[in-house]
Amino acid sequence: MFYWIGTGVMGRSMAGHLSRAGHELKVYNRSKEKGLICAEQIGCLCADSIKEAVEEADYIFTMVGYPQDVEEVMLGDGGIFANAKPGSLIVDMTTSSPSLAVELGRKAEDKGLRMLDAPVSGGDSGARKGTLAIMVGGKREDFEEARPLFDTFGKNIAYMGEYGAGQHTKACNQIAVAGATAAYTEAIVYAKKVGLDPQRMLSAIGTGAAGSWQIDNMAPRALAGDFAPGFFVKHFIKDMTIVKEEMEKRELELEMLEAVLEMYEDFAEKGHADDGTQALVLHYED
Amino acid sequence: MFYWIGTGVMGRSMAGHLSRAGHELKVYNRSKEKGLICAEQIGCLCADSIKEAVEEADYIFTMVGYPQDVEEVMLGDGGIFANAKPGSLIVDMTTSSPSLAVELGRKAEDKGLRMLDAPVSGGDSGARKGTLAIMVGGKREDFEEARPLFDTFGKNIAYMGEYGAGQHTKACNQIAVAGATAAYTEAIVYAKKVGLDPQRMLSAIGTGAAGSWQIDNMAPRALAGDFAPGFFVKHFIKDMTIVKEEMEKRELELEMLEAVLEMYEDFAEKGHADDGTQALVLHYED
Repeated sequence: MFYWIGTGVMGRSMAGHLSRAGHELKVYNRSKEKGLICAEQIGCLCADSIKEAVEEADYIFTMVGYPQDVEEVMLGDGGIFANAKPGSLIVDMTTSSPSLAVELGRKAEDKGLRMLDAPVSGGDSGARKGTLAIMVGGKREDFEEARPLFDTFGKNIAYMGEYGAGQHTKACNQIAVAGATAAYTEAIVYAKKVGLDPQRMLSAIGTGAAGSWQIDNMAPRALAGDFAPGFFVKHFIKDMTIVKEEMEKRELELEMLEAVLEMYEDFAEKGHADDGTQALVLHYED
Repeated sequence: MFYWIGTGVMGRSMAGHLSRAGHELKVYNRSKEKGLICAEQIGCLCADSIKEAVEEADYIFTMVGYPQDVEEVMLGDGGIFANAKPGSLIVDMTTSSPSLAVELGRKAEDKGLRMLDAPVSGGDSGARKGTLAIMVGGKREDFEEARPLFDTFGKNIAYMGEYGAGQHTKACNQIAVAGATAAYTEAIVYAKKVGLDPQRMLSAIGTGAAGSWQIDNMAPRALAGDFAPGFFVKHFIKDMTIVKEEMEKRELELEMLEAVLEMYEDFAEKGHADDGTQALVLHYED
């Protein structure tokens, strides 16, 4: 019996892959309505509370929004830690704080539970196609046990080390995404400003040293004026803030990352927090 | 008869492809010694001066360092404009100022010469393999005439518009390279700081939304401590400065680009101007 918590853009696609692979699944969402829609799409049950189903689950997957949501779902009253059966394996796939992942891993051990931090990369399209990269921290034997489940929606599945190592790797991923996102955004802005055809510009530069997944997959959405969230601006700000905080603890400033974070913070303040990250092209027009 | 001016890291590979395709070639370098080494490698003649050979040339290719070098080679005493025969086609492949490209295009017309701005992307490895992206500005018929020559060392060959459009496209390329370079650099710095294996981190993130040509091709050099210039820090600073100046004229600030430029300027001041761009990882250690 599997339990999937969080049925947003990413979670519902990933849960669908698990279900289609033949795994009996129950979903839960803080917003019951969203949970029901997802359950109907997948063809599985929807739980009324975390407590209700978590007692029967062998594997519990979570994909929620912010580190504080992870904390609440794990440690809150009626949460997973209070109700999961001993020995069950909890897999948090939310992009969250590495320090929190370490803390949760240790607390899980104290409770006789098992825990992996396993954030993903590849966006909404990767979740739909089942081609996500998955970066995993925790005990290696738990990773090996979960690997066939990851296989149902992932492609590049990497064990990275102890608790938090998955989150740290995802932090690196988000640093690289920040650079690549600002890269195509500012290239488009420049092209428009000087009168180049931005589509032809991207075709000309995309095959060489400037090429990136972001240019291939996200820049076309930006150019088409499709600002629907594959990945929310507000969640990207959360991820970059995690990076900044982890580096501040170590007295290091990542200059590009902080410049991009600042841009997105300005952009969110102007009312774009719920747009997709590709909407940043508007930042230069506002 | 072809004439190739500038036999640095990029120029000598590109000239070699032209020569192997059967085109009779003469090279020239400001440093005679470098010119001779290149001529020997390729098996072609080496000229003593620009004037000497330019009178016979139908096609004149230039690949020098800075916009001021382009200006000198084109407009200086004993330069190309003063000595080229009427109707010859000058192709400047240096990454240079778009405004200068417009100026040179017009001056060439006044002199009965023809001119293309055709900067490239793909680095030293693209030049060696003959897989460069080439972005071309100027008259379309001149582009069509030169295309078979570009084919000998290029792959994605794009006509972008009037004089300067090639340089503007290359400027966009360099914006994207700046983001992607800072991206893998700061990801590596983060990984090292938190104790992740940077090689495994790059393998984990390289296939997803963070993926880029820079991660695949340049990050491994940075990790291996190979800081030899495929692309010089000082030339990257030149390119980013061109972007900044073009945007300043249009009262626009590209925040990521300027953050990366500032980083590289600091880095060059610390004595790294002649390193390859991948050496930026050292910026965070100095």
